[in-house]
Amino acid sequence: MELIDGKKVAAEIKQEIAAEVEKMVAGGKRRPHLAAILVGHDGGSETYVANKVKSCAECGFTSSLIRFEDDVTEDRLLEEIYRLNNDSEVDGFIVQLPLPRHISEQKLIEAIDYRKDVDGFHPINVGRMSIGLPCFRSATPAGIMMLLERYNVPTSGANCVVLGRSNIVGKPVAALMMQKGYPGNATVTVCHRDTKNLKEVCSNADILIAAMGRPESVTADMVKDGATVIDVGTTRVPDASRKSGFRLCGDVKFDEVAPKCAFITPVPGGVGPMTIVSLMRNTLLAAQHTIYQD
Amino acid sequence: MELIDGKKVAAEIKQEIAAEVEKMVAGGKRRPHLAAILVGHDGGSETYVANKVKSCAECGFTSSLIRFEDDVTEDRLLEEIYRLNNDSEVDGFIVQLPLPRHISEQKLIEAIDYRKDVDGFHPINVGRMSIGLPCFRSATPAGIMMLLERYNVPTSGANCVVLGRSNIVGKPVAALMMQKGYPGNATVTVCHRDTKNLKEVCSNADILIAAMGRPESVTADMVKDGATVIDVGTTRVPDASRKSGFRLCGDVKFDEVAPKCAFITPVPGGVGPMTIVSLMRNTLLAAQHTIYQD
Repeated sequence: MELIDGKKVAAEIKQEIAAEVEKMVAGGKRRPHLAAILVGHDGGSETYVANKVKSCAECGFTSSLIRFEDDVTEDRLLEEIYRLNNDSEVDGFIVQLPLPRHISEQKLIEAIDYRKDVDGFHPINVGRMSIGLPCFRSATPAGIMMLLERYNVPTSGANCVVLGRSNIVGKPVAALMMQKGYPGNATVTVCHRDTKNLKEVCSNADILIAAMGRPESVTADMVKDGATVIDVGTTRVPDASRKSGFRLCGDVKFDEVAPKCAFITPVPGGVGPMTIVSLMRNTLLAAQHTIYQD
Repeated sequence: MELIDGKKVAAEIKQEIAAEVEKMVAGGKRRPHLAAILVGHDGGSETYVANKVKSCAECGFTSSLIRFEDDVTEDRLLEEIYRLNNDSEVDGFIVQLPLPRHISEQKLIEAIDYRKDVDGFHPINVGRMSIGLPCFRSATPAGIMMLLERYNVPTSGANCVVLGRSNIVGKPVAALMMQKGYPGNATVTVCHRDTKNLKEVCSNADILIAAMGRPESVTADMVKDGATVIDVGTTRVPDASRKSGFRLCGDVKFDEVAPKCAFITPVPGGVGPMTIVSLMRNTLLAAQHTIYQD
């Protein structure tokens, strides 16, 4: 069993990005610039955004954090999005989700210029990814692909089972895994809450990607010997022994599943760190106009 | 075994659409208007476009056929697309594929205003379909969903195996079959040329959707008793006994597979007629501004 060390890979890729940025700067270009809109003071969102700002610094990017209180109107946020769309000093930006209920997340996402949509949530980027065209790939699926690639996990013709059909993980990672090329070209099955023979389907998987958000629901009897298991779950479980009062819990019962695996990602330290790295990579691509030229 | 009669369902839906159009006209609205751009004189394309024009008449639509010769430039076609985008008398239009090699199909598709993209090929419509938002669904997958619905084929929690991962059938029908709601909510597996255990995967399918374009490649030993088989294949096979010199051949070896099925579509007369009906339905929705309001 080999542990897939997302923290280490993330650090490596950030160094590669930083080197690329220094080359850009030496060539007279300005640093890539990522902006983030944060509404309210949700603990999880504060942590995610703080980590994104920190990663920007590590990659040599400029970052801007634009804060609004919980009672901000949708119109005010749209106005800010239009401003960022038109700001030639900003290469990409994100709206940290979730948002307060009185605001339509979808409306905001669709207002973002798809050429600056480094989260890859705009329908144009989702559609282009499905069709197989260059696009901003959404961060978590792109991070999973990078991990498979760095560890040379065989994917072509493999049975890949995706647990969960969310718009931000399950569906896009399924789309990427079925594309021609490496990593990809797998036979992909997408399971969800209404899948009847879940254990049977999972136990045929060469690659199992768990993204349901149900802590420790993937048990050893569901996993084939020699499988690669990617755990996308990050549920906060109360833990009095931690200063924070919680610990992150994956979808996989790690201790019993790991011994059966060829490769497995831990939680934390597996997919999580890669998600931010994907965002950094998308921002670099945006600054270099690699995907969209104008 | 029940035969899914696509020709009959298509005729029924065309009547429903025609009734809806007469209501619109009685209410003072103009008839829905579909335009088609046809380049060159490919036999298949001529037939498809002629059938679309005929279906428009049956539905009470206005139709326009805009012809270009094989040597038309990409710029001239783009100009025509921009004209149609801005023509308020045209609700939707299509560019009949395939196009001559010197023209980029993708560039043309992306030039179409997504609000008039009744073929559902524009990345925005593809992305919105994946996310589960209102959109123009591409014609063949939408036609398959209508057939499953009209015949009350149970889909929730069913194992659905899609053979083929094309952008116009395999991937979008997989996306629709995994969506919440009916028809859909199935556990979906997408297979392709590099799938290793094809026979095993197929023989677990409650619903098998064959869209590889390989004549009669789905044989009885690949199909479970009581399965529903949807045959999307329409390969032209030489046949000296026909006036046309060919016959349409599906991906399924019908004679041996049909006796095992709960439901099966024939070729021709199954999915084929539904594809045009989906286009008619999308054009109606475009004329009524049901999906995109402005």
